[in-house]
Amino acid sequence: MAAKVPLTVRGAGTGNYGQAVPLEGGVILDMTVMKAVRWIRPGMARVEAGMKLVELDAEARRQGWEIRMFPSTKRTATVGGFIGGGSGGVGSITYGQLRDRGNVHAARVVTMEDEPRVLELRGDDVQKVNHAYGTNGIITELEIPLGPTYPWIDSVVVFGDFMDAARFAQILGESDGIVKKLITPMAWPVTTYFKRLAGIPPGVHSVITMIAEPSLETFDALVAAHGATVVHRAPSDDFGRTPPLYEYTWNHTTLHAIKIDPSLTYLQCGYPPGRNLELIEHMYRHWGDEVMMHLEFIRVGGKVTCSGLPLVRFSTEARLEEIIHYHEEYGVGIANPHTYILEDGGRKVVNREQLDFKRAVDPHGLLNPGKMRAWFEGVR
Amino acid sequence: MAAKVPLTVRGAGTGNYGQAVPLEGGVILDMTVMKAVRWIRPGMARVEAGMKLVELDAEARRQGWEIRMFPSTKRTATVGGFIGGGSGGVGSITYGQLRDRGNVHAARVVTMEDEPRVLELRGDDVQKVNHAYGTNGIITELEIPLGPTYPWIDSVVVFGDFMDAARFAQILGESDGIVKKLITPMAWPVTTYFKRLAGIPPGVHSVITMIAEPSLETFDALVAAHGATVVHRAPSDDFGRTPPLYEYTWNHTTLHAIKIDPSLTYLQCGYPPGRNLELIEHMYRHWGDEVMMHLEFIRVGGKVTCSGLPLVRFSTEARLEEIIHYHEEYGVGIANPHTYILEDGGRKVVNREQLDFKRAVDPHGLLNPGKMRAWFEGVR
Repeated sequence: MAAKVPLTVRGAGTGNYGQAVPLEGGVILDMTVMKAVRWIRPGMARVEAGMKLVELDAEARRQGWEIRMFPSTKRTATVGGFIGGGSGGVGSITYGQLRDRGNVHAARVVTMEDEPRVLELRGDDVQKVNHAYGTNGIITELEIPLGPTYPWIDSVVVFGDFMDAARFAQILGESDGIVKKLITPMAWPVTTYFKRLAGIPPGVHSVITMIAEPSLETFDALVAAHGATVVHRAPSDDFGRTPPLYEYTWNHTTLHAIKIDPSLTYLQCGYPPGRNLELIEHMYRHWGDEVMMHLEFIRVGGKVTCSGLPLVRFSTEARLEEIIHYHEEYGVGIANPHTYILEDGGRKVVNREQLDFKRAVDPHGLLNPGKMRAWFEGVR
Repeated sequence: MAAKVPLTVRGAGTGNYGQAVPLEGGVILDMTVMKAVRWIRPGMARVEAGMKLVELDAEARRQGWEIRMFPSTKRTATVGGFIGGGSGGVGSITYGQLRDRGNVHAARVVTMEDEPRVLELRGDDVQKVNHAYGTNGIITELEIPLGPTYPWIDSVVVFGDFMDAARFAQILGESDGIVKKLITPMAWPVTTYFKRLAGIPPGVHSVITMIAEPSLETFDALVAAHGATVVHRAPSDDFGRTPPLYEYTWNHTTLHAIKIDPSLTYLQCGYPPGRNLELIEHMYRHWGDEVMMHLEFIRVGGKVTCSGLPLVRFSTEARLEEIIHYHEEYGVGIANPHTYILEDGGRKVVNREQLDFKRAVDPHGLLNPGKMRAWFEGVR
């Protein structure tokens, strides 16, 4: 502290937004050696922040539990990195987002004061450090809720019409009797970028799902009622020879596509609940192949809607701006995925609670400098 | 069959609508001796129809599972009676209604043909006998899904203003990070009819809840954020000395109240999702003490809304009709709780699938005669 050296906390470095890039140099604090399980109890775990999500999940499963939600980088990412830099993912169709009450129970935080303190944030106080990119405290331990474990089954369901796929996804999301973890519609030709899923017939639109095994018979009845076809099915296996299907969803979709065609980019779209299908249909018809539809169904405030993470055939900055502007005019929120600034990528407003907490615990501004706009612009 | 004697199937006889009353005499088939567990597997159970819900639940809990939903008569009612005459209840805030895909997996049905057959209805075919009052087949076995078991905690939370209680209930229902089974707001003076809950302070409005123990800390944070107070808390115990709180909710609320004041009656109101709070506020202000608000929050088609089961201070038939009519004019659906006719109590339309099934399996109309209007009126 005395030397005023910047410090950037890093989990596995899987963030998409440069969360762990030390803009002003200094020390990178590698958290991956702090990986102990403090305890696992029915419905709850307390672990050190550097533990890998996949390892916590495996550990919890031995006791009949599992992590409620995870990013598509589950097999690499850490618990602390997910809470510090993530927002939701696989599982959000059931449990909502990380920011929803009850999805992070407590955080142990070491301060960057001249005399560092160790704080225990519980309940609503967790929001002070949740999704703050490690700018206002070093998260060393986390208490997170667990869900009951199920054998999860991966499926790819195909449709002749993309809107039929989207409507199926909405109805599946709203089917409270079916236990599910992932509902991901993708318009043709998004799936052509996945070498391992080469078996998907040409021209069809897909929905990738993870369904609990006891709900599979019901799921198949719903698929049949929609006149759709299951073209791939396998247990979702974190440790098998072939990757689980979730590694083709969320931000991994873009990752696979860009490997094949580096000229592609993508957007992050927030479709408002209630109007999401109508807006998706409009955008799908309007942009055609230039904005290739990829949706992730989630619960937002208790309602089933979706995020859009479409692949965009990039031509010019001006055209990209036009696409973004058009979405916003129709009421589809766009989060910029091309910024490392905390506020700019998300809600574009000052998070007063996180700013105040940074003032209190990092008075010299040493933690991950250059990421929290409200801090470096000196918002009062 | 040859003697053409009517046959009425009966579980525990707890139905509110005379489901098991043999209108044309004949034989009552007491199902309570058929109470064997066929098997319990992760997430699923198959049992004989006469098994008590409370016993299946206890059995499943030994393996880490529990029944997803039950009526307030859980400690008496049978599995078959619930499927045959019920629609949802405690647990519907998470899993929706019995009619939702996935909440009844399969039914074994014995027909009333001259040569009786044994049929296995699976998937969507279960709807042929679901909530049909035993008019079109004798359900002998059921396969129903199980949810993960949690230690459930009963609470009574009190508010100074009834609409604050209702808004809290909505937000709790939409809090995807909190695991819950029951959310029941009651306006003062509904709780005064519960002798065992005499400790509730005078004049306050209550929300009765069942929350999973791991979510309780988060629940309390939500209560605190709403400026409310928990005045009762205890584990929800089916076998304890004092009854679990769910025995004051759903149709039990009315039962307790009518014991104290036989002049009371009640309504069953369906509040449309999205507009429910606005409509509740209107009805609450409009009717005041004449229609005492009792709400049950549930998921309908994936959305959180509520049923209303208000206690009504009965004066005249004309006035009751006026109250019903007023609700309907505002878009609040009213189901008549004072009829033993299948269609009249529910959606007031012919269920073609159930009628056709009755024609096929009960050609002489011997099963629970007088209950299915479409049959006795000879709908073609």
